[in-house]
Amino acid sequence: MDLIDYIDSKREDNLNELKEFLRIPSVSTQSEHKPDVERAAHWVADKMAAAGLENIKIAPTKMHPLVYGESLHAPGKPTILFYGHYDVQPAEPLELWTTPAFEPTVRDGKLFGRGTADDKGQVHIHLKALEALKNTVGKLPLNVKVMVEGEEEVGSVSLWDFVQQNRSHLKADALVVSDTSMLAKGVPSITYGLRGLNYYEIEITGPIQDLHSGVFGGAVPNPITILAEAIAKLHDKDFRVTVPGFYDDVAPVSPKERKLLNSLPWKEKEFRRTVGAPDLCGEKGFTIVERLWIRPTLDVNGIWGGYMGEGAKTVIPSKAWAKLSTRLVPNQNPARIAKLVEQQIRKLLPKTVTCKFKVLSTGKPWVAPYSHPIFQKAIHALETGFGKKAVFIREGGSIPFVTQMHDTFKVPCVLLGFGMPDENAHAPDEHISLENYFGGIKSVALFYQDLASGNFPF
Amino acid sequence: MDLIDYIDSKREDNLNELKEFLRIPSVSTQSEHKPDVERAAHWVADKMAAAGLENIKIAPTKMHPLVYGESLHAPGKPTILFYGHYDVQPAEPLELWTTPAFEPTVRDGKLFGRGTADDKGQVHIHLKALEALKNTVGKLPLNVKVMVEGEEEVGSVSLWDFVQQNRSHLKADALVVSDTSMLAKGVPSITYGLRGLNYYEIEITGPIQDLHSGVFGGAVPNPITILAEAIAKLHDKDFRVTVPGFYDDVAPVSPKERKLLNSLPWKEKEFRRTVGAPDLCGEKGFTIVERLWIRPTLDVNGIWGGYMGEGAKTVIPSKAWAKLSTRLVPNQNPARIAKLVEQQIRKLLPKTVTCKFKVLSTGKPWVAPYSHPIFQKAIHALETGFGKKAVFIREGGSIPFVTQMHDTFKVPCVLLGFGMPDENAHAPDEHISLENYFGGIKSVALFYQDLASGNFPF
Repeated sequence: MDLIDYIDSKREDNLNELKEFLRIPSVSTQSEHKPDVERAAHWVADKMAAAGLENIKIAPTKMHPLVYGESLHAPGKPTILFYGHYDVQPAEPLELWTTPAFEPTVRDGKLFGRGTADDKGQVHIHLKALEALKNTVGKLPLNVKVMVEGEEEVGSVSLWDFVQQNRSHLKADALVVSDTSMLAKGVPSITYGLRGLNYYEIEITGPIQDLHSGVFGGAVPNPITILAEAIAKLHDKDFRVTVPGFYDDVAPVSPKERKLLNSLPWKEKEFRRTVGAPDLCGEKGFTIVERLWIRPTLDVNGIWGGYMGEGAKTVIPSKAWAKLSTRLVPNQNPARIAKLVEQQIRKLLPKTVTCKFKVLSTGKPWVAPYSHPIFQKAIHALETGFGKKAVFIREGGSIPFVTQMHDTFKVPCVLLGFGMPDENAHAPDEHISLENYFGGIKSVALFYQDLASGNFPF
Repeated sequence: MDLIDYIDSKREDNLNELKEFLRIPSVSTQSEHKPDVERAAHWVADKMAAAGLENIKIAPTKMHPLVYGESLHAPGKPTILFYGHYDVQPAEPLELWTTPAFEPTVRDGKLFGRGTADDKGQVHIHLKALEALKNTVGKLPLNVKVMVEGEEEVGSVSLWDFVQQNRSHLKADALVVSDTSMLAKGVPSITYGLRGLNYYEIEITGPIQDLHSGVFGGAVPNPITILAEAIAKLHDKDFRVTVPGFYDDVAPVSPKERKLLNSLPWKEKEFRRTVGAPDLCGEKGFTIVERLWIRPTLDVNGIWGGYMGEGAKTVIPSKAWAKLSTRLVPNQNPARIAKLVEQQIRKLLPKTVTCKFKVLSTGKPWVAPYSHPIFQKAIHALETGFGKKAVFIREGGSIPFVTQMHDTFKVPCVLLGFGMPDENAHAPDEHISLENYFGGIKSVALFYQDLASGNFPF
């Protein structure tokens, strides 16, 4: 039977099986669900076997096991390392779900339930694509290594150790990840760029103790005001970050790429509706999409100090704090940017206060050479699988794992996302579009088939 | 017997009686102490009787009774309305007291215990001064009305109602309050000026929901940054408040008064030590004392928004908040200042956000005409009672009751403070200097004697 016909014939079976997966409340952050997480790991292992994978391991970790399986019977063909996760976010607040989080339900062409989009639905797409290949070809026509973790929603605490310990065994020609989103409904997408992320915490100390604002007000340094004054000076009126050297290493984006990004069917109106602010703002000289994807930014993510309760307290606090982050683009160096930001903040502060500056994390930006043949094959597979034009997109967020894997294995990473930005990944009524789920299975199967039949090495 | 000899002869008796008062844990904010508060009210009533007062009432209120007594048998002589309070702050944290909070103990010429300075010790000074006058003169030589409340530490919730309901009965020629501090050890003081206080809360809304700082950062208004930018613009580089019109109505302070304030034995070194910041700052062109007492200020008392927990959360929050206050000086109008501050903040905000501006409270500044004869008599009494030079001081804080009483009765208010700034009024190891306690009794007795023997009307 033809690959696509086979996949079409399994629609009901696949959907029912996904529902089974979704009914397991594998909430990794809630200890009462530990047995459910364990159960989900075994479920994944079973389906790996059904897809033709071997050497299946449920590898114990500090918290929740990582499930691994492989099929390496296609000499001379490419080897793909797939990554996904089987754990899910908590379902609370339960009362905001239209139908219960762990009772998957179809409405309006969408499957609702915790984990549908993030990431069980997407993991299932790959397992079913592999199974379809195995059952139509007779065996898996390329080499695959499948790694599905159970700790993604608690920060992938063991993943990196696992990768390091199995580094030579995990070697592959490409990495495929399905944990991102499409640009919009009906627009299959490959994400080829992510911003890096540095996260900082600042503590400003003025007086050594909280002071009465009547007795002391007017003659002492107020750490809140001073922190606010420093923050205010981090952007100029054109919304450019004023940290000296901040833009020095930013890789230019070609006019062609900018044109491509700006011509995407990206819905500004929908973006504005999601934000809901009276108006948008951003760096002068760049479009909204460019501000989000190809420009570095600095944001304050939190601020606190003094009295935050009901009513009034006449205090000049001893301390004030802020959390800041910078999103980085190629070729900014996270360590250098952290140093520049610290230097500038220290320079902006008067001598009346002291400052503790902590770098909580740094993370590199990532961009893939999307002219590489594997990306062309992927985009073609998406277009065939969905019967729609597919696009290359970038994202403003960060997936540290992708950067780490890319740095470790020096191979292309293909981010095939079948979620959608409005699918409530971490909120009530999470869902996945059935069109994307079924289209995803076809696309992935076609992609792997094409990889197996094309030239290799690429 | 001479008044001063009599008071000296009663040193031990008075101190023991004060200790008795201090042993009653009349903590007004802790409901388990309600019977103790009641007991303290009765104790005050008894001592009022011993001081020669009549028509003593333990007036019930919403929470804790107000004790009132009077002696009106000196026709043609001035009538004084005295105010103090018999309730105290909680003693917690108990483990930080050197000796238990409610077991008063003398060490190093100081009496330690909760309420010694704030305000039982000071109330007792007045009761003992009146008793001394009665017992040496034979009767109270002037008219006195004594009002001692039990709710000061919970915000004087019933005081103002009581005053309004008994307005005509409470009429007096002067108000005397002992609930403030001396400038420093050995410097008896009369406070003749207080700043007013307006308190505001600002809520800035940008996006209608919290957003992911990766997905949205760079293209949306961040309410924290925008709030910080507005706060930063509220002062210029000379620490002047930039709100247009803010200084318009500020009453000039004469060069003579400024000189007087600046020549006070005010300890800058000690002030700097208490603040403990790397350096001080404040409005250009004014000394520290002037910045604290005669200049209006604007301070941020609290700020919050976004993620304030441990570690990192990549959020651009929907909202950010700040609490602000302005300290006001004569002749600033609180309602006008509130309007000006709101106008300026709204003007400073970009159109990308909305703002809720709430005025939580307004309060007028107060300054007494200290050349009025009653102040001269008070300062003279302090100098005789203490055998030391006494001074007129102002304070940066606010006592709304003083302003309200002054506005209601239009009579001089004499703030005779026998506490000291470092006596831990609301902290463990609260104490009063015995020199101030005994000197206070003499000074108040001499003050009342002088008022009774001098010209009247003033």
